[in-house]
Amino acid sequence: MLQGIAAVLDWFGLVVFATTGALVASRKEMDIFGFALLATAAGIGGGTLRDVLLGQLPVFWVQQPAYLLVCVGVAALLFFTAHIPQSRLTLVLWLDAIGLALFAVTGAEKTLLSGAGPVVAVAMGVMTATFGGIIRDILGGETPIILSREIYVTAALLAALVFVAGLTLGLTHPVALVSGFVAGFVLRAAALIWGWSLPRYRSRPPAK
Amino acid sequence: MLQGIAAVLDWFGLVVFATTGALVASRKEMDIFGFALLATAAGIGGGTLRDVLLGQLPVFWVQQPAYLLVCVGVAALLFFTAHIPQSRLTLVLWLDAIGLALFAVTGAEKTLLSGAGPVVAVAMGVMTATFGGIIRDILGGETPIILSREIYVTAALLAALVFVAGLTLGLTHPVALVSGFVAGFVLRAAALIWGWSLPRYRSRPPAK
Amino acid sequence: MLQGIAAVLDWFGLVVFATTGALVASRKEMDIFGFALLATAAGIGGGTLRDVLLGQLPVFWVQQPAYLLVCVGVAALLFFTAHIPQSRLTLVLWLDAIGLALFAVTGAEKTLLSGAGPVVAVAMGVMTATFGGIIRDILGGETPIILSREIYVTAALLAALVFVAGLTLGLTHPVALVSGFVAGFVLRAAALIWGWSLPRYRSRPPAK
Repeated sequence: MLQGIAAVLDWFGLVVFATTGALVASRKEMDIFGFALLATAAGIGGGTLRDVLLGQLPVFWVQQPAYLLVCVGVAALLFFTAHIPQSRLTLVLWLDAIGLALFAVTGAEKTLLSGAGPVVAVAMGVMTATFGGIIRDILGGETPIILSREIYVTAALLAALVFVAGLTLGLTHPVALVSGFVAGFVLRAAALIWGWSLPRYRSRPPAK
Repeated sequence: MLQGIAAVLDWFGLVVFATTGALVASRKEMDIFGFALLATAAGIGGGTLRDVLLGQLPVFWVQQPAYLLVCVGVAALLFFTAHIPQSRLTLVLWLDAIGLALFAVTGAEKTLLSGAGPVVAVAMGVMTATFGGIIRDILGGETPIILSREIYVTAALLAALVFVAGLTLGLTHPVALVSGFVAGFVLRAAALIWGWSLPRYRSRPPAK
Repeated sequence: MLQGIAAVLDWFGLVVFATTGALVASRKEMDIFGFALLATAAGIGGGTLRDVLLGQLPVFWVQQPAYLLVCVGVAALLFFTAHIPQSRLTLVLWLDAIGLALFAVTGAEKTLLSGAGPVVAVAMGVMTATFGGIIRDILGGETPIILSREIYVTAALLAALVFVAGLTLGLTHPVALVSGFVAGFVLRAAALIWGWSLPRYRSRPPAK
């Protein structure tokens, strides 16, 4: 049952990130295999990095090709429908926000399950959440969202932190999962809507 | 014997990709260690990613330093001869095409040998074929070939697909290997000669 | 005792590289979590790649979250003090030089300890030394230092080579470690001060 909820969130994150990959491909007017490549890289990238660093090899999609097939399916679907949304960039940003909060939580959870401690779980949640988007943007030749000036990494961190802290404080597993997701997503959503950002470093002598 | 053919193709792919790495270094007027770095990254990058994702660790060249030494040797040779070809960019593109088709096939084969299924083998073939070129281009500060508008990923996919389908349909191992290579290389060659590309996504409302 | 010296050098390299990451973040006027991300990526990136390629998984910081916490601590400290140095770019270059020579030596050492041979140890030393800086610069949107025209990769190579050759020739462990570090650092320092570079490839017909 617990497994069930985390698995559902994980699949949902995969589909959401795969969609952002396909949308980036559409913005670059790629062919259908470019769509498939970016959808797959965005969808499985974060979880793949997590599995490699934890030593859970072969990585998750080697035993379950369904993950690859879903990414390719999303790419094929988007190739014919990506013109429908009014602004694909806006859609990328919002779906990426959902995937970011989802993968931060599920990435932290899988890290805890592997036996690592809470600090590592939070760090791995952040990496799982951000890495798929980073390689999507690099392969697509876009400026990585992670460099955007609004709150981004912080939202992933908050999601993972709330989840791990929630478990430690005795929340049930599903409540901790959902709390972490909501916290991270709401923060990122607020940043997207109102352009929230944290105080930035200001160079006092101008940066050289 | 079967092992023999695949191993020969794999070595050949390594030399070909190492050569493209050295040629990119020559286009950037690097020093001899820059040549060595790019030759090595291009030569072993794809196979290294494959081994990591499959969990076949340490990666292949840790037990066999000959792989590293060959890359360095190619780099040294090219440092003194790279001025001979008329157009180094053309040479990079053609050698990359050979390496792409070779590594797509041998990458898929090693994945099957590791016990994974056909879908994963095809995906891993594509990754093995393209990853060395991606890091070569990133380290060399070039626009990745993978973003070029002609057919590229598709050729790697075709090579891996023909090989895996050939085996499934009962072709002997060497015939399947060669068929996959020829299919992928011919497609990429045609794309290079006639500028073939697949239908691209066209944004109906202009991309935002 | 031997372990002690190598461990001290390794921690020192981590702090030094984490500092360069935070300084790059300061040059880009990031927020505090951007500082933490770049400090962590620079600090643990090289060792993480080494552990993955050698198959020593999970990677070193999964069992010892102190590594992550130190990177985050460095980031927090620098967020409030990075304006003090006159030129942050100069500081990045010099600290990077120290970290480069340190990680080349300790990376080669850990590779030897894992049972691999001297050629692989030298190659892995170079990768450990350069990879953290590469991802720091990519995540920070800077031109990677590794592409700079002064001697860079060569200094890492020299450090790893002197260390491995020293051991082979019968130097004691601490002497080999320090000799390698000094050789690599002095070469890189000379390159920074006098703009040393190796002879570069010159295209005779202009590069196409």
